[in-house]
Amino acid sequence: MLSSDPSPLVPTQAQILAQTDQFEVLSCQWTENQNSNSQSRQWNECRILIQEGTFESILDLGANHCETRLLQAGDSFEAPMGSHYQLRCTSPRGQTFHVNTLRLSPTAFAPLFAPPRDLRPPLGLSSESLSWAELQKTVAQLQGSMVTTDHGLFMNQLYSGLWPEARLANQIAAENKTTLATQEAGGVLADIETEVVRALGAKIGWPANQVDGLAVPGGSAANMMALHLARHQRFPNWRKQGATGEQVRVYVSSDAHYSFQKACVALGIGTDSLVAIATDDQGRMSVDNLKTQVQLDLQKGCVPLMIVATAGTTVWGSFDPVEALASVCQQLKVWLHVDGAWGGPALFHAELRSQFLQGLELADSMTFDAHKLLGAAMTSSFVLTRHPNVLLAANDVSGGSYLFHENGKDRGRSAWQCGRGPDALAFWLTWKSRGSDGLADFLTSLLDVRDELLQWIAGQPRLELVRAPAYLNVCVRVLDPSGKRDRLWSRHVREQLRDHNQAFVNFSEDANGSFLRLILVNPHLELSHLQQILRAALLIHH
Amino acid sequence: MLSSDPSPLVPTQAQILAQTDQFEVLSCQWTENQNSNSQSRQWNECRILIQEGTFESILDLGANHCETRLLQAGDSFEAPMGSHYQLRCTSPRGQTFHVNTLRLSPTAFAPLFAPPRDLRPPLGLSSESLSWAELQKTVAQLQGSMVTTDHGLFMNQLYSGLWPEARLANQIAAENKTTLATQEAGGVLADIETEVVRALGAKIGWPANQVDGLAVPGGSAANMMALHLARHQRFPNWRKQGATGEQVRVYVSSDAHYSFQKACVALGIGTDSLVAIATDDQGRMSVDNLKTQVQLDLQKGCVPLMIVATAGTTVWGSFDPVEALASVCQQLKVWLHVDGAWGGPALFHAELRSQFLQGLELADSMTFDAHKLLGAAMTSSFVLTRHPNVLLAANDVSGGSYLFHENGKDRGRSAWQCGRGPDALAFWLTWKSRGSDGLADFLTSLLDVRDELLQWIAGQPRLELVRAPAYLNVCVRVLDPSGKRDRLWSRHVREQLRDHNQAFVNFSEDANGSFLRLILVNPHLELSHLQQILRAALLIHH
Repeated sequence: MLSSDPSPLVPTQAQILAQTDQFEVLSCQWTENQNSNSQSRQWNECRILIQEGTFESILDLGANHCETRLLQAGDSFEAPMGSHYQLRCTSPRGQTFHVNTLRLSPTAFAPLFAPPRDLRPPLGLSSESLSWAELQKTVAQLQGSMVTTDHGLFMNQLYSGLWPEARLANQIAAENKTTLATQEAGGVLADIETEVVRALGAKIGWPANQVDGLAVPGGSAANMMALHLARHQRFPNWRKQGATGEQVRVYVSSDAHYSFQKACVALGIGTDSLVAIATDDQGRMSVDNLKTQVQLDLQKGCVPLMIVATAGTTVWGSFDPVEALASVCQQLKVWLHVDGAWGGPALFHAELRSQFLQGLELADSMTFDAHKLLGAAMTSSFVLTRHPNVLLAANDVSGGSYLFHENGKDRGRSAWQCGRGPDALAFWLTWKSRGSDGLADFLTSLLDVRDELLQWIAGQPRLELVRAPAYLNVCVRVLDPSGKRDRLWSRHVREQLRDHNQAFVNFSEDANGSFLRLILVNPHLELSHLQQILRAALLIHH
Repeated sequence: MLSSDPSPLVPTQAQILAQTDQFEVLSCQWTENQNSNSQSRQWNECRILIQEGTFESILDLGANHCETRLLQAGDSFEAPMGSHYQLRCTSPRGQTFHVNTLRLSPTAFAPLFAPPRDLRPPLGLSSESLSWAELQKTVAQLQGSMVTTDHGLFMNQLYSGLWPEARLANQIAAENKTTLATQEAGGVLADIETEVVRALGAKIGWPANQVDGLAVPGGSAANMMALHLARHQRFPNWRKQGATGEQVRVYVSSDAHYSFQKACVALGIGTDSLVAIATDDQGRMSVDNLKTQVQLDLQKGCVPLMIVATAGTTVWGSFDPVEALASVCQQLKVWLHVDGAWGGPALFHAELRSQFLQGLELADSMTFDAHKLLGAAMTSSFVLTRHPNVLLAANDVSGGSYLFHENGKDRGRSAWQCGRGPDALAFWLTWKSRGSDGLADFLTSLLDVRDELLQWIAGQPRLELVRAPAYLNVCVRVLDPSGKRDRLWSRHVREQLRDHNQAFVNFSEDANGSFLRLILVNPHLELSHLQQILRAALLIHH
């Protein structure tokens, strides 16, 4: 539950032993069956020691993941940041000792979606220094002037909220700076990346000896690397000689991510090589149109380099027909890339997978982001491939002997980055913590909220569902106060909601004008958040 | 001071009010002039409330940055993670209240450079879940099996230690996940990136209206982007049409970073286009050789695209002659890129700058890393350019209308990344906290340690300084126990030191064989660390 009111974790009888801006220490007396409210939202970290009696604690980590523990005198626990905790005394009386630290910024209670500039600290850099106390004040001002993204009313991006495991991963990374370039420096963190790649490859359905992959800085980078791999596979001399007049073609749907355009620019292939194939009325690439286009291009002497199946488009959440595209690719011996930056996690969910990802195991490469639906911090992205040698063959260079002492084992040889952080860690912790089954349950819980939402929208005369959603994008048009489709109205509504800190949702446009795009992704999301947003939208009258 | 013994921040009379694995709460009585030892290394976060009396605190943030504060009853403070704190009672008696949290892993006391595999948690991912308590145990195992990089004896990479500001930045990022792609989502964090770019541009000496730049995921990415910008400036149609038979050339020194090879591969230019120019006996690109090579290439009809001046080579820390290279570039109208990933911070230091970076303001672009010498977390890298329109012109594509609603203001248009984190934040906090003068002082303190070290090495018959260092790389050959140059001995010594957790330094090779490369970068570095490493090296006999 995302409560908007601060509520203490302690019962009525709390004795304050010490209190500052930085911490508070409390001692609490409990009577039988007394319940605490959920975790105080004034403090980010709550640590508790049971001194007397027996207790039951309920930890709600979000994403449909709760656990109940029995506690007795001498036990202690830490309520993880971002979790919701409840405590209940199960003995006639009890006593607890509490240490709360890290006071939260005000935005934790009242979300801030368009922070006024006067909340900010002065940004200018100069020769002058600050005392540590002044720096702490600067940090507090900064925290109070950032956009709140850890809230059920934030759904402007393809992420919302931050999972406790991601916070743990950040702490680990903060205490132990490492680069994953070499095995000797990256150590266990490099092996964790390897394990995530292995486990994702197994989920995709590739044979164990046909899996390779790498954490890269974002889904765009994963798509770019995939195109580079496809190029290398087809034209292995390009890396040495550069282009020698090849007319290549890369096929994406017209709703594909713009990063393929950027990739064609950066890789030196040129945007003329990128062909956008029209989508059908459900936002999926038309296979017939693709086949026609490829034949035309072949007749012109072009070389089809890669076909991209988008698994979860950015606006509609549509899935291109992977199996049909795989069959085209097999026939033409063309590289099939699946861009699963948004929809990739569907492979954890049996029903979504069988509905939308049939044939995924035939892909040559895949983009998978854990920082979107699965809550890792920016960024946790993977490029995966079933060609185990191509990453190294496409990217290893002779330099770096000062660094890469052990041929083959150092992952940096396959990467474009030299120094890089443990991007895979948060996802590994999350997967470890919840298991693949827990990740599937999370998807189910969001799909349930979506279905409740669709039912509710159907009863609202001024809300128009633009398309039946396949995934977790709900696109809904707000009719103007007179009940008409005004091309600009939904966009106007969205900006009003943002500017009044009521909600932060994105918009897009189709032939009938603008509409709201609701993204169902927050691990604590409830129908009530969505209703709150849309009710506020309907109250806007000018 | 990097004390190897845990020592409490409290005086003798500490009363423990509560103690668990997660926290401890203490109450302390003080007498006049009583001193605490430096901050306890058993706990990562120490928060203190002054309840009675007056105190003086000394905060040592490393990098030659200390501050003294007077405290009285009611004052409280937090000893930042990674800092060293001392407290002294200045009144006849005093009383303090302490909350210590986040117990450190054992590696904080005894550095772990080659962690045995049996310390690790099981890495395998499956459908199974863990309880939160089990996950915490996993995290503790993980922390205990990572390579220790926050220690004066770690100098294998071009970073060591982690600055308190970097830890603060990680905390902020952990609490407030953001993408910097758009202004509306990135907000103040996007503006902080802009301010860092502005301030670095001013430091370089570019006019205020001729500065642009972007945080990119690492120095390799900055070099790659710079080459892309140079290509776009010379061949603006390449981004649309791809290569049309251009024979381009990119010139680097033979000691330049291997990322230029990777960039030629990724950008589709081909490694044949990369020309390595020999260096002189101080590791600097020979300008005469460069001129000769360029003339040869021009005669063959090649187009020189970019000349790279490396500011701080990876092995020797050498600086190519920027001014002389700038003059070649101006004559030929070729893009000059300065790779300052390692040596860039020298621009904060008047003496180093005048010695090694004359003419820097003539560069067309520069790579600057704050995660190496300046202690930010991985990664904090910038590509900077004095051509204010080229980043956007080279990278903006028509797609992404669902995201980029405000033309021109959204930094994501200029980037290859879509979602990306606040990479500039740690460096901004550090610069804000210490000022440019503080950063210069830090460099001075390291140069002082270096000079003491050189003097000490001169008195050691079995240590041979391979070259007089220009910067913070000290390359020293360890002669074998019989006093001879054995090609493999230094490498062997280095591996022995690592495997016995005595030190983690890197090695490289010249015509005479292997040698140790000591990197002077840890903010708490003292001569004694370097002596400890080299004395241990001399004790190895087989």
